[in-house]
Amino acid sequence: MAKQNIAALVIPSADPHQSEYMAAHWQVRAWLTGFTGSAGVAVVTRTRAGLWTDFRYWIQAGSQIRETEFQLFKTGEPGVLEFQDWLLEHLSPGDVIAMDGRVVSMTQEKKYRKLWTDRQVRLRTDLDPVAGIWQDRPALPRSRAWEFPDRFAGQSRVDKMVQIRDAMARAGADYHLMTGLEDIAWTLNLRGSDAPGNPVNIAFVLMGCDRVTLFIDAGKMDQDTTEALSGDGIRVQPYDVIDGALAALPDQTGVLLDPDMVSSALAGAVNPGCRIIESVSPATRLKTVKNEIQIRHLRDTAVKDGVAVVCFLHWLSTRGSGTSVTESGAARKLFELRRQQPDFVEDSFTPIMAFGANSAMCHYRADPDTDARIDDTGLFLTDTGGNYLTGTTDITRTLCPGRPTPDQIRDYTLVLKGHIAVATACFPEGTRGFQIDTLARQFLWQNGMNFGHGTGHGVGFFLCVHEGPARISPHPVDVALEKGMLMTNEPGLYREGKYGIRLENMVLVTEARHTEFGRFLSFENMTWCHFEREMVDPSLLTSAEISWIDQYHRQVYERISPHLESGAADWLRQKTRPL
Amino acid sequence: MAKQNIAALVIPSADPHQSEYMAAHWQVRAWLTGFTGSAGVAVVTRTRAGLWTDFRYWIQAGSQIRETEFQLFKTGEPGVLEFQDWLLEHLSPGDVIAMDGRVVSMTQEKKYRKLWTDRQVRLRTDLDPVAGIWQDRPALPRSRAWEFPDRFAGQSRVDKMVQIRDAMARAGADYHLMTGLEDIAWTLNLRGSDAPGNPVNIAFVLMGCDRVTLFIDAGKMDQDTTEALSGDGIRVQPYDVIDGALAALPDQTGVLLDPDMVSSALAGAVNPGCRIIESVSPATRLKTVKNEIQIRHLRDTAVKDGVAVVCFLHWLSTRGSGTSVTESGAARKLFELRRQQPDFVEDSFTPIMAFGANSAMCHYRADPDTDARIDDTGLFLTDTGGNYLTGTTDITRTLCPGRPTPDQIRDYTLVLKGHIAVATACFPEGTRGFQIDTLARQFLWQNGMNFGHGTGHGVGFFLCVHEGPARISPHPVDVALEKGMLMTNEPGLYREGKYGIRLENMVLVTEARHTEFGRFLSFENMTWCHFEREMVDPSLLTSAEISWIDQYHRQVYERISPHLESGAADWLRQKTRPL
Repeated sequence: MAKQNIAALVIPSADPHQSEYMAAHWQVRAWLTGFTGSAGVAVVTRTRAGLWTDFRYWIQAGSQIRETEFQLFKTGEPGVLEFQDWLLEHLSPGDVIAMDGRVVSMTQEKKYRKLWTDRQVRLRTDLDPVAGIWQDRPALPRSRAWEFPDRFAGQSRVDKMVQIRDAMARAGADYHLMTGLEDIAWTLNLRGSDAPGNPVNIAFVLMGCDRVTLFIDAGKMDQDTTEALSGDGIRVQPYDVIDGALAALPDQTGVLLDPDMVSSALAGAVNPGCRIIESVSPATRLKTVKNEIQIRHLRDTAVKDGVAVVCFLHWLSTRGSGTSVTESGAARKLFELRRQQPDFVEDSFTPIMAFGANSAMCHYRADPDTDARIDDTGLFLTDTGGNYLTGTTDITRTLCPGRPTPDQIRDYTLVLKGHIAVATACFPEGTRGFQIDTLARQFLWQNGMNFGHGTGHGVGFFLCVHEGPARISPHPVDVALEKGMLMTNEPGLYREGKYGIRLENMVLVTEARHTEFGRFLSFENMTWCHFEREMVDPSLLTSAEISWIDQYHRQVYERISPHLESGAADWLRQKTRPL
Repeated sequence: MAKQNIAALVIPSADPHQSEYMAAHWQVRAWLTGFTGSAGVAVVTRTRAGLWTDFRYWIQAGSQIRETEFQLFKTGEPGVLEFQDWLLEHLSPGDVIAMDGRVVSMTQEKKYRKLWTDRQVRLRTDLDPVAGIWQDRPALPRSRAWEFPDRFAGQSRVDKMVQIRDAMARAGADYHLMTGLEDIAWTLNLRGSDAPGNPVNIAFVLMGCDRVTLFIDAGKMDQDTTEALSGDGIRVQPYDVIDGALAALPDQTGVLLDPDMVSSALAGAVNPGCRIIESVSPATRLKTVKNEIQIRHLRDTAVKDGVAVVCFLHWLSTRGSGTSVTESGAARKLFELRRQQPDFVEDSFTPIMAFGANSAMCHYRADPDTDARIDDTGLFLTDTGGNYLTGTTDITRTLCPGRPTPDQIRDYTLVLKGHIAVATACFPEGTRGFQIDTLARQFLWQNGMNFGHGTGHGVGFFLCVHEGPARISPHPVDVALEKGMLMTNEPGLYREGKYGIRLENMVLVTEARHTEFGRFLSFENMTWCHFEREMVDPSLLTSAEISWIDQYHRQVYERISPHLESGAADWLRQKTRPL
């Protein structure tokens, strides 16, 4: 920094594809700070170092950076400046901030440049902040790319490209640069394993009106896949020649790209004679709406995954008192049970198995130092999922191996009331997730409580467990919930140092009714596993809420018990009897 | 258009101050189309003419443009293109669109220019679309400006300027251009009557670090006011020399202006050697938070206005059967009753007195053709307000002079449940209005119903009855509700051709409690007038909702009845007895 006369270095959690879960190669922020969570920004000035991260990671980050120079800034907490404003308070006119232009998106770069330039602070994006410093930096992953069969995808890549080209034509675009790994995987019906839990391939796609180029490391491609792609008009070129291809685009053509996804460096590589058309990638929206074949698979997957989770909960509650189980042992057991289900491929994310005070950390991950034994002294929160060829799952349950306290019962019941309010919501077409989010929080709010994460996120189909852009969260993302979208419903409550509660099912947006006020949507449940009867205080529930729980439990028993051994089935009958 | 080679003309509802209620001089769209509502955009191409307006005005606009060439486009209805996209579908590359740069805001101009330029359609903003065409165009209003005493405002203009200059310093600004008429009135504690219902003066303000210039027509200013301003460091210049003053700003200085409020023409007049700092005007936010003196006045005003409205409702329900009353007659009566209250100045907006099918039009305004007689054959909706020196009010009640139908009772009860859900909400600090909005709609949604306007808006203090930027609406306005903000709570339901229901109180944001989850806010009621007991179906209410109604009614009786004659007081006791 001194040599380049840089006053501050900003290191976001980002790769050239704006992936949520990044290959180790791009985890510069984690390497620098020691904080391993999925979201956070590190800032280094000549005299200070800070780490900004959101609610989900405040406890984990605080513990992981304790022994470092980094100071924790809790994003979203009242009175805490965002890093971009903090920098303005700590820098002077004429100072230079550096960010790596290959990983910062066009939108971010523009926003920060505007903010800082207004205050006479300059932004440079042409430096690699760790060049020559990070000696043992991991190489890019080299997993094989493979074709995802149409019988799972439900739509051929040729059909998808027709849809995308229609959208390009409507936007007046001749070319479309795709950089999102999930968009590329969905569009080309390709899968890989380049990011943990996300079956994607590191690649770029440049789509023209009649031909498509896939930029990908040659070592990932086998002959058959290359030929199949070629048969559909898709040629393969090396990953790192994308800049040249963008520079060589014909003058006067329109290039559609998503400024939230494309890095400022890549946008800068486009031939300046082209018109840039900024818009969300058509695939980003298209892939969130599941087709009928996918929906049929998802309904089956809900039962398969439910069987695995119910077996896991049965095992956990009935193992002999001499059997000691730790959080990591529980994760291994559930993985084994999921692996017995057809079409299972891998966990869809690192399982969260969190006992006692650990459950208060929303995105806790057991490591050898923290790996707690699960006993009857606290609550146990299990948030896990599977990637099946037939769909991706995400489920959270919270149990009380011992006797619940009155506070735990009240908190569990209030969280469950919020869960039910979302599960039973009916809402007009055009409703955005931020309008639904409050339904999950209202009962907690009335009691002076709240939770710091969103109520729900989209879920990919054998893709990323967090799929944008639709969300159910207080964050005002202006994307309507549409028929066919798969979302989670996961309100929670966290008491630091004591316990956490989260209750999560997946839900599919479906059509409910059509009235003189228009079309109304509702949710179809896509997760089958009981809640904990002994954690529910029926006196806090309306009769409609009690009916919902009883009816849900009846369905869980009907769908799951035929796949259980008789001991587990009897146990499930007890767990699902009416309140 | 042919002479200037213009393919399309866009005429928004806007003036150089982005006022909601504009002086007649700037009502170009109303003059051109005949549609008199407060919001809407007219578009004229060589072969077609369209009018875009939102839900509130679909019925009114449809009727007012029926005999014209203009086609109605219902903004917000699924499948209806916004005008800017419709234009792209109907124009060709190379075509030119004209909009008046003196009334289009910087934000809009930038948005449309970007969108259209991407599709090779040009935007010109240097033409006055009606120059030489609108022969009898009204002149600008010349109402006198007068000082609003500190005992009502609760804060001196000198104090306010200190707050604004603090904000300017934090933003790195040397100058601040204010164009919003309410911001100017609030900052300088000046009032006028240049817009119907809004006690403002048409003016601009240019604030520097040590001096302030008010640009205003000299005819509006008297000697005393000019001297008082001068004593506080504010000099007066003519309204139309603002461009020259902006051009003469010193090089290298920072000019803070709100791109949503400042016209593109005015922004273009700023010396290009200045740095433009785009930000909401400090006064815009500051004025929404009412101070303790204002709050004391508002509590008194709630009683005064409640007395006027209760007297009106008593008169309406007890007048002899021989007395025929029309909508406009009802408006005159309520105006007379308000005028008897101390410190009353004027209606805060054109009263909505809507009987029968007219009540289905949210912003209905009686005219000689539609002025209905109020009898027992339908519902009567009355949405009115007063501008008092002690605050601005806004209240809606819906009555049934005859016998309500079961549908009307169910609809009224569902709307009231939404009203109560907002009135009793508790929510964490930082909550935005769009998070509250759903509370008002949830019961309607469950029954396949909805309403097309927001649940609430901010209210000025002896200023505009619609005060931004905070709103309670599905629109994702990212402004938190803060302690001291005065909002309305007005869910509704509209059945075209049959009836409309709207139930509106004002509420003040107050601190509720502080827990381990942070600070929580709630609403203090600021409107005292009974609801209609005979329109409520208690079987649809929870016991908490019934208690709320009974308790509210008890308070209405206690606060209002001491100011009533005995006949009216007895009547009110009946109207407010427990359910």
